[in-house]
Amino acid sequence: MSDDICRGRKPVIDLLTKSPSRCAKLIIANNVRPPFLDELLDLARSKNVTWQVAAPEALDKLSGGEKHQGVICRLTQAKTMELEEFLRGLEGEKSALIVVLDHIEDPHNLGAVIRSAEAGGASGVITAKRRSAVPNDTVIKTSAGASLRLPVVQVANITRTLEALKSANFWTVGLDAEAKVSIWSERLPDRTALVVGAEGFGLSRLVGETCDLLIKIPIKQEGVSSLNASVAAALGIFEWARVRV
Amino acid sequence: MSDDICRGRKPVIDLLTKSPSRCAKLIIANNVRPPFLDELLDLARSKNVTWQVAAPEALDKLSGGEKHQGVICRLTQAKTMELEEFLRGLEGEKSALIVVLDHIEDPHNLGAVIRSAEAGGASGVITAKRRSAVPNDTVIKTSAGASLRLPVVQVANITRTLEALKSANFWTVGLDAEAKVSIWSERLPDRTALVVGAEGFGLSRLVGETCDLLIKIPIKQEGVSSLNASVAAALGIFEWARVRV
Repeated sequence: MSDDICRGRKPVIDLLTKSPSRCAKLIIANNVRPPFLDELLDLARSKNVTWQVAAPEALDKLSGGEKHQGVICRLTQAKTMELEEFLRGLEGEKSALIVVLDHIEDPHNLGAVIRSAEAGGASGVITAKRRSAVPNDTVIKTSAGASLRLPVVQVANITRTLEALKSANFWTVGLDAEAKVSIWSERLPDRTALVVGAEGFGLSRLVGETCDLLIKIPIKQEGVSSLNASVAAALGIFEWARVRV
Repeated sequence: MSDDICRGRKPVIDLLTKSPSRCAKLIIANNVRPPFLDELLDLARSKNVTWQVAAPEALDKLSGGEKHQGVICRLTQAKTMELEEFLRGLEGEKSALIVVLDHIEDPHNLGAVIRSAEAGGASGVITAKRRSAVPNDTVIKTSAGASLRLPVVQVANITRTLEALKSANFWTVGLDAEAKVSIWSERLPDRTALVVGAEGFGLSRLVGETCDLLIKIPIKQEGVSSLNASVAAALGIFEWARVRV
């Protein structure tokens, strides 16, 4: 259930503002007062979102113990974009960056990657359906709302998706701590699919073998230090952006 | 109290391995079994750390409701390095990066910055004593242990510290979303103190005015997108590393 709701003042306002079509119903605790109450109701009216007032305890229950600050949105089924549709939209683009996540399970990491992807100018994020974080309210919050704006495509199989990306004229570039090539030694291609693995495990073997190119972010103290997956992703995303400023 | 303990299997093992002098006492729940129990006791013996066995409920209480996985270390007072001592150690270095945090309150962000700082080759992290996250066990965990290895200097006043850094021949470079200069347009100086502000607020006015130089990370969709403070810090840290590979 908790994956199908969005809770908390800032996330709900973001959702109502940017993706009202994802709000099935807005539920407001009866102890929420103006001016926040007015802001909520004005938004709900202008965006044509159904709302109801309920006892705070009802929201506690809906929220499964998580903080909700008196406001919860029930979400409609996420409008997942299909891979084909997403790639069709990028057909004419000379330059495009896609971020592919190979099973990132932590929703904070997923949110952080989506936020950096948007800020760095990526066209979208691809993530696996299974063993992965889903774009829930934690993701909306950690992404500072970016997950409501940037296309997030969920696919069944990452390896097959990489093949589809190659066919669509993307270079598949995997971040891999064991790679021989430094991220700074070659210019990242105009059409890049940047593949980022799960924290602590890196790319799965098959995914790594499918990539056109494996690159690493040079670390000062190898064997001791490592990078957080979302930091590694951000460094890759902004390296792509840097060389085409 | 919870700032003075380290809990959980991985954080405690990291602490015992890398900073045994910070362990005042190791407390093990009486339901912890081999082989993990043996690993703990071997480490405690070899590092000369006092230990005791206690009922799981005693650990629950010590831990204040946080998950502890049957093992907790009481920490000695953090060995805080003084700024003068820290700077003295860097006197002869042609190249050195220091990361200065202007009131980062979220311990996850502090941990993430320390992790990236170590990986990118920074010499240490400076943080304010007040209104800031302290290097507790959340920080140890989020930093993947880096906070136990990299010097973390706590100072009373960031602005005065920037003046001290200038006197010690560091360029003080602030990350500021409103800056006119892009981080990619100038080579970061050999001796750089990279100043990173709190999420959502950026640098405080006085800190910004004290910096020798303000630079920004170019964002694709200004006004819509923004960067997480720890991601911004990582981009600055690795930009410094990139130009001196």
